[in-house]
Amino acid sequence: MKAARYYGKEDIRIEDIPEMPVEPGTVGIDVAWCGICGTDLHEYTDGNNFVPEHGHPHPISGESAPVTLGHEFSGVVYEVGEGVDDIEVGDHVVVEPYIIHDDVDTSENNPVYQLSDDMNFIGLGGRGGGLAEKIAVKRRWVHKISKDVPLDQAAVIEPLSVAVHAVSRAEPQAGQVAVVGGGGPIGLLTSAVLKAKGVTVVMSELSELRREKALSSGAVDYAFNPVETNVVEEVMKLTDGKGADLAFEATSVSVVMDTLMDALRPRGVLVVVSIWSKKHEFDMHKLVMKELDVRGTIAYANNHPETIELVESGKINVEPFITGRIGLEGLVDEGFDTLINHNETAVKILVSPSGKGL
Amino acid sequence: MKAARYYGKEDIRIEDIPEMPVEPGTVGIDVAWCGICGTDLHEYTDGNNFVPEHGHPHPISGESAPVTLGHEFSGVVYEVGEGVDDIEVGDHVVVEPYIIHDDVDTSENNPVYQLSDDMNFIGLGGRGGGLAEKIAVKRRWVHKISKDVPLDQAAVIEPLSVAVHAVSRAEPQAGQVAVVGGGGPIGLLTSAVLKAKGVTVVMSELSELRREKALSSGAVDYAFNPVETNVVEEVMKLTDGKGADLAFEATSVSVVMDTLMDALRPRGVLVVVSIWSKKHEFDMHKLVMKELDVRGTIAYANNHPETIELVESGKINVEPFITGRIGLEGLVDEGFDTLINHNETAVKILVSPSGKGL
Repeated sequence: MKAARYYGKEDIRIEDIPEMPVEPGTVGIDVAWCGICGTDLHEYTDGNNFVPEHGHPHPISGESAPVTLGHEFSGVVYEVGEGVDDIEVGDHVVVEPYIIHDDVDTSENNPVYQLSDDMNFIGLGGRGGGLAEKIAVKRRWVHKISKDVPLDQAAVIEPLSVAVHAVSRAEPQAGQVAVVGGGGPIGLLTSAVLKAKGVTVVMSELSELRREKALSSGAVDYAFNPVETNVVEEVMKLTDGKGADLAFEATSVSVVMDTLMDALRPRGVLVVVSIWSKKHEFDMHKLVMKELDVRGTIAYANNHPETIELVESGKINVEPFITGRIGLEGLVDEGFDTLINHNETAVKILVSPSGKGL
Repeated sequence: MKAARYYGKEDIRIEDIPEMPVEPGTVGIDVAWCGICGTDLHEYTDGNNFVPEHGHPHPISGESAPVTLGHEFSGVVYEVGEGVDDIEVGDHVVVEPYIIHDDVDTSENNPVYQLSDDMNFIGLGGRGGGLAEKIAVKRRWVHKISKDVPLDQAAVIEPLSVAVHAVSRAEPQAGQVAVVGGGGPIGLLTSAVLKAKGVTVVMSELSELRREKALSSGAVDYAFNPVETNVVEEVMKLTDGKGADLAFEATSVSVVMDTLMDALRPRGVLVVVSIWSKKHEFDMHKLVMKELDVRGTIAYANNHPETIELVESGKINVEPFITGRIGLEGLVDEGFDTLINHNETAVKILVSPSGKGL
């Protein structure tokens, strides 16, 4: 089968590799669509981060580069392994792409299984990937989704789960006001989840095109350019001078952190969603004097069922966030290149590994 | 009456001033003991911070320097103003020393009344102070305390309330493990509150004398010198490699923040109790990847009743934290000087403004 294989920095190859066997306890999936994630881009531009370097096998998967890429995918079940009796051939599914030690409790009793030692992702740390025609995945990580949800939209469930998890970290209540710093894919999806929960969303984003997308998709109520508009003043006007209840940092830019801390009310909650590669000059005095609450969030844990329900019920429409559909051969030239060099208009570019969806 | 008046940086004068009238709705208190707070020291060494500069009256109290100092005090009621019918002459009381706008809800319905605009403290922002023989305080801010609690110990209720509030920000559960960074007065009192709630306390503190005080007072279970001992490793040993549930930063030193973040388990809660005068190079990546939760805390709100109960019931013994008893004339030479220059052994120095307690 065709698969996109990551060898190292700026070295991704489309190759023919054997299909994965559908072993007992696993589900064989014919991949319909797979999104390209910011994490994939970072591996490509900066070199191995989640992908284990060649010769340094991951402690759980036992694999190292080259590995098949892709962790945001949907598909149709073509075979079920021995012992799997609650999923059938033909079911539409999405995958929660975890590689986690077998002795970790991954039930609802453990709300932080993603923080366990050596955690990695299918499509980065081994165990196949969604940028291939087929994949076999352990039953635990396969979630059924209604056939009423188009399979391309289903491929957005994974990044939307990141947003659902990030929002859950803030424990929002309907009627609250949130400020989202940054209108990239995760900022947009986080906004859409907040809106679905009845929260008024104010976005701060430099790019006019991104602000337009945020507004036209219905993900936000207000979108301001922080260079032209004093975002803190606007938030104060909207909240009778009280400040926002919640804030989400989705840029890894220091000035955005400062704006969000200023825009929050006393006891406001700020969730940091972005991955920071540098330290931040944090205003500890403000944290203390406003009794703010700054929380990290990473990936998801037990968030896929809720995420699927949000899409199945129509509470969130992810269609506006799909900005491209390509084949596997165009992965680097059409996909990665667009996301790296034209990221104001591109949100989610989906790949059809078999070409059947195109 | 005699009172310690703050004029400005390094200028505190013991003067004779008129007694405050006991107006309707207020309680006249004969001050028994008043502690010296780190905040008082900072006003003295660094100049006006909470105290409004001369000619710049505080928006609520209408006062500016000189003001009477002292906000950690106990005393005996000598007169009650018109309309006060639930406090009697002779009652022992402590004061929650707030200056807050009249239109702010200061009931239990508002858990953050201390974060309201222009908040200041009696004994810093005006309205008299505990470093005077007498004071009149609005009924709302006067709390009765059992006569079984010695009045010197009662004077420690105010800083202990800071600790009770800080601990409440972390929502601790009995059986959890907390790391406290710093064994100054607030670090010690925070530890004592944690212990009273059934939490195992590990302290990181450079000073041998402070570690000895922390251990001998029963405030901590373990006390390590971070220069000699890898505190993170010790915490991991104590928690089967999981990490601490809670951490409290009481030093405003960056390396302590880093140690606490490393010592915490995933989803651990770090409460910043200290006042920072500089930015901190914050490890955002660690916050995100461990899903930590960093919370500010300042002063108290509705914490005095619980604090008084903790002392009345004997769950916390504050006697070991009283390390000096002096008269008003010795305030600067014996009190401030000792706390500034011999702060390894001094915790709480109490002043008897009338000299009656000596």
